[in-house]
Amino acid sequence: MKPRRVIKADPPMRLIDVEAERFGNGDDGLEGRAGDQLFDQFRRVRAATLELAAPLSPEDQVVQSMPDASPAKWHLAHTTWFWETFILAPAGVQPFDPAYAFLFNSYYEALGERHPRPQRGLLTRPDLNEVRRYRAYVDDQMQRLLHQGGLDRATRDLVALGLAHEEQHQELLLTDVLHLFAQNPLKPAYRPAPRTTPAAGTSCGPTTYVEFPGGLVEVGVSASDGGSAFVFDNEGPRHKVYLEPFRLADRLVTNAEWLAFIEDGGYARPELWLSDGWACVSAQGWSSPLYWDQREGAWRGFGLAGPGPLELSAPVAHVSFYEADAFARWSGRRLPTEMEWEHAASQAPVVGNLRDSGALRPLPLTPSSPASKGLHQMFGDVWEWTASPYAPYPGFRAAPGAVGEYNGKFMVNQMILRGGSCVTPSAHIRASYRNFFQPHQRWQFSGVRLADDVR
Amino acid sequence: MKPRRVIKADPPMRLIDVEAERFGNGDDGLEGRAGDQLFDQFRRVRAATLELAAPLSPEDQVVQSMPDASPAKWHLAHTTWFWETFILAPAGVQPFDPAYAFLFNSYYEALGERHPRPQRGLLTRPDLNEVRRYRAYVDDQMQRLLHQGGLDRATRDLVALGLAHEEQHQELLLTDVLHLFAQNPLKPAYRPAPRTTPAAGTSCGPTTYVEFPGGLVEVGVSASDGGSAFVFDNEGPRHKVYLEPFRLADRLVTNAEWLAFIEDGGYARPELWLSDGWACVSAQGWSSPLYWDQREGAWRGFGLAGPGPLELSAPVAHVSFYEADAFARWSGRRLPTEMEWEHAASQAPVVGNLRDSGALRPLPLTPSSPASKGLHQMFGDVWEWTASPYAPYPGFRAAPGAVGEYNGKFMVNQMILRGGSCVTPSAHIRASYRNFFQPHQRWQFSGVRLADDVR
Amino acid sequence: MKPRRVIKADPPMRLIDVEAERFGNGDDGLEGRAGDQLFDQFRRVRAATLELAAPLSPEDQVVQSMPDASPAKWHLAHTTWFWETFILAPAGVQPFDPAYAFLFNSYYEALGERHPRPQRGLLTRPDLNEVRRYRAYVDDQMQRLLHQGGLDRATRDLVALGLAHEEQHQELLLTDVLHLFAQNPLKPAYRPAPRTTPAAGTSCGPTTYVEFPGGLVEVGVSASDGGSAFVFDNEGPRHKVYLEPFRLADRLVTNAEWLAFIEDGGYARPELWLSDGWACVSAQGWSSPLYWDQREGAWRGFGLAGPGPLELSAPVAHVSFYEADAFARWSGRRLPTEMEWEHAASQAPVVGNLRDSGALRPLPLTPSSPASKGLHQMFGDVWEWTASPYAPYPGFRAAPGAVGEYNGKFMVNQMILRGGSCVTPSAHIRASYRNFFQPHQRWQFSGVRLADDVR
Amino acid sequence: MKPRRVIKADPPMRLIDVEAERFGNGDDGLEGRAGDQLFDQFRRVRAATLELAAPLSPEDQVVQSMPDASPAKWHLAHTTWFWETFILAPAGVQPFDPAYAFLFNSYYEALGERHPRPQRGLLTRPDLNEVRRYRAYVDDQMQRLLHQGGLDRATRDLVALGLAHEEQHQELLLTDVLHLFAQNPLKPAYRPAPRTTPAAGTSCGPTTYVEFPGGLVEVGVSASDGGSAFVFDNEGPRHKVYLEPFRLADRLVTNAEWLAFIEDGGYARPELWLSDGWACVSAQGWSSPLYWDQREGAWRGFGLAGPGPLELSAPVAHVSFYEADAFARWSGRRLPTEMEWEHAASQAPVVGNLRDSGALRPLPLTPSSPASKGLHQMFGDVWEWTASPYAPYPGFRAAPGAVGEYNGKFMVNQMILRGGSCVTPSAHIRASYRNFFQPHQRWQFSGVRLADDVR
Repeated sequence: MKPRRVIKADPPMRLIDVEAERFGNGDDGLEGRAGDQLFDQFRRVRAATLELAAPLSPEDQVVQSMPDASPAKWHLAHTTWFWETFILAPAGVQPFDPAYAFLFNSYYEALGERHPRPQRGLLTRPDLNEVRRYRAYVDDQMQRLLHQGGLDRATRDLVALGLAHEEQHQELLLTDVLHLFAQNPLKPAYRPAPRTTPAAGTSCGPTTYVEFPGGLVEVGVSASDGGSAFVFDNEGPRHKVYLEPFRLADRLVTNAEWLAFIEDGGYARPELWLSDGWACVSAQGWSSPLYWDQREGAWRGFGLAGPGPLELSAPVAHVSFYEADAFARWSGRRLPTEMEWEHAASQAPVVGNLRDSGALRPLPLTPSSPASKGLHQMFGDVWEWTASPYAPYPGFRAAPGAVGEYNGKFMVNQMILRGGSCVTPSAHIRASYRNFFQPHQRWQFSGVRLADDVR
Repeated sequence: MKPRRVIKADPPMRLIDVEAERFGNGDDGLEGRAGDQLFDQFRRVRAATLELAAPLSPEDQVVQSMPDASPAKWHLAHTTWFWETFILAPAGVQPFDPAYAFLFNSYYEALGERHPRPQRGLLTRPDLNEVRRYRAYVDDQMQRLLHQGGLDRATRDLVALGLAHEEQHQELLLTDVLHLFAQNPLKPAYRPAPRTTPAAGTSCGPTTYVEFPGGLVEVGVSASDGGSAFVFDNEGPRHKVYLEPFRLADRLVTNAEWLAFIEDGGYARPELWLSDGWACVSAQGWSSPLYWDQREGAWRGFGLAGPGPLELSAPVAHVSFYEADAFARWSGRRLPTEMEWEHAASQAPVVGNLRDSGALRPLPLTPSSPASKGLHQMFGDVWEWTASPYAPYPGFRAAPGAVGEYNGKFMVNQMILRGGSCVTPSAHIRASYRNFFQPHQRWQFSGVRLADDVR
Repeated sequence: MKPRRVIKADPPMRLIDVEAERFGNGDDGLEGRAGDQLFDQFRRVRAATLELAAPLSPEDQVVQSMPDASPAKWHLAHTTWFWETFILAPAGVQPFDPAYAFLFNSYYEALGERHPRPQRGLLTRPDLNEVRRYRAYVDDQMQRLLHQGGLDRATRDLVALGLAHEEQHQELLLTDVLHLFAQNPLKPAYRPAPRTTPAAGTSCGPTTYVEFPGGLVEVGVSASDGGSAFVFDNEGPRHKVYLEPFRLADRLVTNAEWLAFIEDGGYARPELWLSDGWACVSAQGWSSPLYWDQREGAWRGFGLAGPGPLELSAPVAHVSFYEADAFARWSGRRLPTEMEWEHAASQAPVVGNLRDSGALRPLPLTPSSPASKGLHQMFGDVWEWTASPYAPYPGFRAAPGAVGEYNGKFMVNQMILRGGSCVTPSAHIRASYRNFFQPHQRWQFSGVRLADDVR
Repeated sequence: MKPRRVIKADPPMRLIDVEAERFGNGDDGLEGRAGDQLFDQFRRVRAATLELAAPLSPEDQVVQSMPDASPAKWHLAHTTWFWETFILAPAGVQPFDPAYAFLFNSYYEALGERHPRPQRGLLTRPDLNEVRRYRAYVDDQMQRLLHQGGLDRATRDLVALGLAHEEQHQELLLTDVLHLFAQNPLKPAYRPAPRTTPAAGTSCGPTTYVEFPGGLVEVGVSASDGGSAFVFDNEGPRHKVYLEPFRLADRLVTNAEWLAFIEDGGYARPELWLSDGWACVSAQGWSSPLYWDQREGAWRGFGLAGPGPLELSAPVAHVSFYEADAFARWSGRRLPTEMEWEHAASQAPVVGNLRDSGALRPLPLTPSSPASKGLHQMFGDVWEWTASPYAPYPGFRAAPGAVGEYNGKFMVNQMILRGGSCVTPSAHIRASYRNFFQPHQRWQFSGVRLADDVR
């Protein structure tokens, strides 16, 4: 991967237009150099996965803490399986071990039977060393293939998909490890606490609202739009939507604001909740965001640096859609739709507290935080729950075959989140990116930006 | 909303064109006669509920066949509780029995604790006679109130809501009884089979598709639009949406077509299903619509007239959203969005095989079936699953207080159905009407109309 | 209830003394008129079942309040099915309705498929009138058969079994209705409260313990012992057991004593409980016997006469084996084994507060209460949990065919109870009678008598 | 208890005759040298635990394959916790890490809150190295204590209990690892297959039955009987029981015989099963013992040496009580009671295929197999299900405090197994030893010996 142009050039935010770099500057000779580009990207993305796993012991990497999460070792193997299955096998490369086609398929029905998801944590064999050998073998084969060049467009598209896929699993590896460690009474840290802790009590000012006139706008990105940048199929087709005038909060909801919600009985007032949300709160006994803990009156949080006092001015994280929605109702506001969010973000540079910043936790807003159109924290820190259920855009058709299962078949019972989080690779996120989770899920870095009607 | 034609005014089902009566012919003097109008409507709607329960024994009316369904007696009591709670209590009328506020509240959190939904079937007391006395008492009080006139606008709105509410429970009473009887190996009939059975083998022709140009259109009805007709809060605000050109099937999918889906392995091919749908099919072991039954090679159905041979040219009913979606994918088509459906239906008269026709089952299309813009069966027969998750329209705000819980708090994890069914009162349905159920539910008369992109 | 003589009956008729006393004239000509005896017994037992159902509405009789319980109508029909299946069908009598073989089989695998137990409450049809017609038809056929006499030994044994079977269901009908009514917030009464309420505060004296020397004793009754009284197969064979010296409480544990257990933290101290018991208490949130209820500091009970203040000196009822065992441990005692109980009871007359007393609730001990060997309340009031798991006696073999399923196949995971309760017909109980329920069950009239070692 | 012969003293399994060492040669001066004896035993038992874990990777040792099983690392830590809690803490030794009191308590309520059993597999920290350090620390402290001698009787009893406890966990470590590996599609082996495989087709002759006259006999061993050998509290008090004459099969049921049961429809005939057993078979879909697998018509087994062809003449293993009971009924026999078994075994030397033989799997009977009174395989190979529910012996009282929770609180809902298995240390087993598991459990090496009445 070539050095990249940094939009916001100053330290400490190193976050940048990777997208532009990844796929070149446009149309000049892309065809001829694509191989080399992909070669570099492939090496870097693959290396990053291993780097993320490095602080973890073999024991840390084998255990599955809940059916929604996967062991780190499984992430290492499954991402490798993806390359082997979609690129190497069609190219005639011998599989590393035929059993892995069964063991490390995640959910592709078109590829046959597979090891059940809730049992991923039972695979003590192949052990971590063996999975590393598997990675090395596949890396070697992939690099040979990429180096020789001459790949057709479909294959290059699959490589780009594989890179995006691996980046998604990088994020999941971190959120899954955080969940695992949170179950352990010893509360281990994924990595040492950062050198400097933000001054306690630093508080950001009151939220202000940025107004958008709405009207007939375009959202989404068609893969075939001629742009060279990779996008998932579910981000398109690009299409028109009509937006009523709306207002968007200039920043994320903070832990301090969430405490006010708790103290006002937010978790005990059914009138604030959707019916399913209230059922969930009651059944699960939720009374705070996931990973919050109250000892002797003081709230503590838990993150990749282990436990610590709740950072009041940092964005709230690890809340479900149900909680986000109830908070918005309590605030007299609402969540933005995904279209409002995308429209507002569409011209903004992709800068923010993404994984590349190294913080690996949501950070308080500071006076020097970047903004676009007055909006802060649009990218990074936490995924922002929207009011939009995950549904296909007009004209969406899943691709035929196994790759078509990537996104389309999940388009029900999920809600859209936007903007990436502090564990999202900056190269991975963009304004049109549609993340989705079930409304009760909380183990991602998920938070809230409020919106409102213009009345 | 325009005056509508009445399909069928003869006995034995006397539930006719209440809507027309309810809201008069337009704007002439409605205000002044509202009291008398409401009085008549109230009497008719209340009488209709009792009439629907008449074929049922006390035993039939007390049992709850699943948590989603309610006993008929509970419907009789709960609808009565609604009047007592929202109209009579504020007017200072003595409650019939103070315990009923607890027993017959359905889900209004603002009104305090209530009897748990899955235990509605345990209430052998109060017995049916007592519930009838409860109805008589409340009817009496309500009629006194309506007769004396002079109700303010808010109260009249609540009365209109109460009538719509009671009509919804009339429909549920029938679908719940059908479910109950389906669990009984004796397969009882709610009422004798109709005198004439449609000629077997009658087949409707191939589906044709009606094309719509789309563009920026308006959908929804604002309660405050100045029209006098009642609409639910979730049908508004009226707002603009941009529709891509689309095509809509001119008729509903038939049982014959569904059989072809089954015979082509539709229930055994994961590639046709959403992921949650496939999990549901696998867990539940579905291999046909609900109430279908295969004996010695022949498919049989089950309806309010009891069991019988499957009527091949009748619209398929009792399919879930998951099945509807899989069928559409198998067909190479898709489900319409609710906006497409409403736009197509918006100018059509509300005619069709609704409850007032007396059939109480989906009927095959006949040459004389009414059509609007080439579309048949838009209203009645079966509720049509759409591709749209249930979400608030732009600017929607639930009313404050208990009445605000009517619709808004269910706006997650549900899919929209449109058009009414053969057990929907014709006065109850309209183009803007949004019904909603969870995607796995099948005990309603729910079916499929296909749509497609214009490519 | 009068004390009764126990007839030491002669062979070959094993039907009974108690029965004969209840309904017959004594001992004159028993042998020669066995047919008539059975005829009378049959009529009386069958009539008693209907009498017990008489206070119940059709609605009360159709609902099933939990999978362990059955609707009263189902009891009426199933007991009838027993006669039809085991006596009438082999005798060539036409079935009343062939579908009933499926609907009303309880658990006899040898008789083919059957309606699932948890769905017994969904059978609104056949309705109560139809089930009464079913009973009348079968009664008529049975009486014809019994009247004509000349039944062979095997058939007469089956008739005796059928009578015992029907008596068991009479008891269950009452406990099941009590459970149903307890779920209803209106707390209805099965029948009006008795005319006189025992003086509040009446307290029985302290428990004294009656000592038994133990040694090698005989327990059990072999069906082939030559006695004429009916016994279940699980009561035999008669066999020797060696008992260590033991002591038995002279009376049942009272509600007052149970309150002391509660107040001493009995439900919150794991050291008092078996591991499975503690898991059950924790999962179910038990903090008192079933049907107890605390309002404004005062404990109330609930019985067949409806709710009322807890009768402190009455025997505690509706406790599980787990609770009985924990109470015993808290008391520094233990539960008796079934062999100790039977040995102690074996010479005692069957007298006590059984169903025939008409109280239908456990009664406080009074100075005039009958005793045998210093032991009070051995029969009636409440079934007494023993420390003995339900297991076959040495040499036990289930009979071949469906009748063999009556008792043998339940001999695991259940605990033995002895002595009958206030809803057990007095003709039904005896010293050797082995009742059994799972250790968590509480809806029977089940209580505690303490025992101890002689140390 | 008499001194016993040791089967096998050679490597490779060096775990030998600990029992003989433990309790010396009889009565000469044991008291005075107990300290040294215990010291040696302690070292050997502790070393054996580590040896058993040696073939396992850190990953293998952290995962929990089901709530009933525990990770190997947890066994290593919990056994260590036992010494620390019951011996070192009272002796004033500093705990290694205070958090471990919570993490590694198994079920002792008297010792406070503990990590939930189903989450033992989430403890990736402390890692294996840390747990080994924990063991080393506690071993060091324990050896110091034992070496200095002068322990009082109660402490020495606790040490003996700790050794027995650790031996139990050694067995569980192996059965839990076997279960874990069986979940892995790669079917790994715990250790290489043994050098020689028994000749295929070797078949043992037909079962013969050894007759016992019964009568009044004594069973059980009182801890206070004056014998120096350790016994668990649940093995006493010694007491009299009366046994009817009975017959016991001279050998265990084989895989070949189990195949005949399968082929005769054993898993599909409800009349062979207890009611709870049939419900279990139906719900779980059992059609063979656990770990059996049929591929292309051939049955395969799975053991600590990995998968392999079913050894037909070896004893069947990994069957539940329900299956054992059904098999016995199919055979026209029954299971022995625990008293019959103990009476028959009481004079037999403790010899057989126990863990010390090194086979780690049930072995076919050979002509040279040892026998006592004509009975083969009484000890070792597989635990033998008995017909006896686990209940206290007459006069049993659990010890006060946490140690009293060891056995007594599990005396319900479990069935007794006798005789030890191929993974039981020979020093651990004896005729009076009462093992117990729930009737549905199959992951232990559990099998069947038939019994019968003398008629």
